[in-house]
Amino acid sequence: MINYPIIRKSMQTKTVSTSNRGMDLEAAINETNEYYINNDIAYIYKKPIPIQVVKVDYERRSAARISEAYYKVPSTTDYNGIYQGKYIDFEAKETKTKTAFPMKNIHEHQVKHLENIIRHGGIGFVIVAFTALNKIFLLEAHYVIDYYQRSESGRKSITYQEFATYGYEIKESYAKRIDYLKIIDQLYFQGK
Amino acid sequence: MINYPIIRKSMQTKTVSTSNRGMDLEAAINETNEYYINNDIAYIYKKPIPIQVVKVDYERRSAARISEAYYKVPSTTDYNGIYQGKYIDFEAKETKTKTAFPMKNIHEHQVKHLENIIRHGGIGFVIVAFTALNKIFLLEAHYVIDYYQRSESGRKSITYQEFATYGYEIKESYAKRIDYLKIIDQLYFQGK
Repeated sequence: MINYPIIRKSMQTKTVSTSNRGMDLEAAINETNEYYINNDIAYIYKKPIPIQVVKVDYERRSAARISEAYYKVPSTTDYNGIYQGKYIDFEAKETKTKTAFPMKNIHEHQVKHLENIIRHGGIGFVIVAFTALNKIFLLEAHYVIDYYQRSESGRKSITYQEFATYGYEIKESYAKRIDYLKIIDQLYFQGK
Repeated sequence: MINYPIIRKSMQTKTVSTSNRGMDLEAAINETNEYYINNDIAYIYKKPIPIQVVKVDYERRSAARISEAYYKVPSTTDYNGIYQGKYIDFEAKETKTKTAFPMKNIHEHQVKHLENIIRHGGIGFVIVAFTALNKIFLLEAHYVIDYYQRSESGRKSITYQEFATYGYEIKESYAKRIDYLKIIDQLYFQGK
């Protein structure tokens, strides 16, 4: 029963819709995934946010109204699916900082999850948007794991320079807004 | 904004917890998946139930309380993950009937989803429990697709006999309660 991190605590009884939770990157990735699905390229979906339902009202016939519920901490990453017969798994995060991505934005169990995925032959990565710089990077899971381990005794973030060096920039485009599979093609399906 | 089908409409303002929504099969599969995860065999998870959040109260510092939300219809199947480098995707359903599994228990877009998954090289199936008979079957997605197509002009269900003939019975066991990967091994990883 833990407050889900992306919601600002200062807000008071505000109407929230899934589509405008201030997640520009999320919206862009969802659009991209729709493009992939509609064009039969890949089937990758965002997992629903896990919610613990406590109370449900059945006042109307048509719709059960949940009147008490709480956000839970997700146990895996947000996105998974299939591409070219391969299992794909990733997490997407935004940061407002210009110099480094704070490691605390990724939960330990999510890093562990990515580790499990790649050990079992899946493709795992993170997509990080530096919103102030208008730059988006894909960074493969094994780097994320290394940087997470580093953060236990040293630097608690991945620097922008490290993203620029070891990651792959994703340029936002029109139809496939965040065309991350272009990078995955280069990395895993070269020459196909 | 559609009432989620597994909740009975006759209930009035009742406390619901995810763990006891009467889904015995679901609980058993979740336990099995935990076994697989804890023994580093496979990473297969149940997706959270999709919920449309309308209103959130931030009365307390510690926990955002969702005070208005509605169940949404899932756009994919309930379970997916990775096993032996392969993408795994399935839906699990219970039925109380003794003679046939009504096709209406599976949404059209879920059948379509399974079709997409197997066309792209994933492993897709359904697990159906005939609770009155204490029998559980795994049926591969291509049969589900065929029976779904049949239901459009003919029989609106898959008979028990068809499950017994084309499906694979899963005997409930102690630690791995619903050991469906044993069947998947036979079907896809024979001789490994």
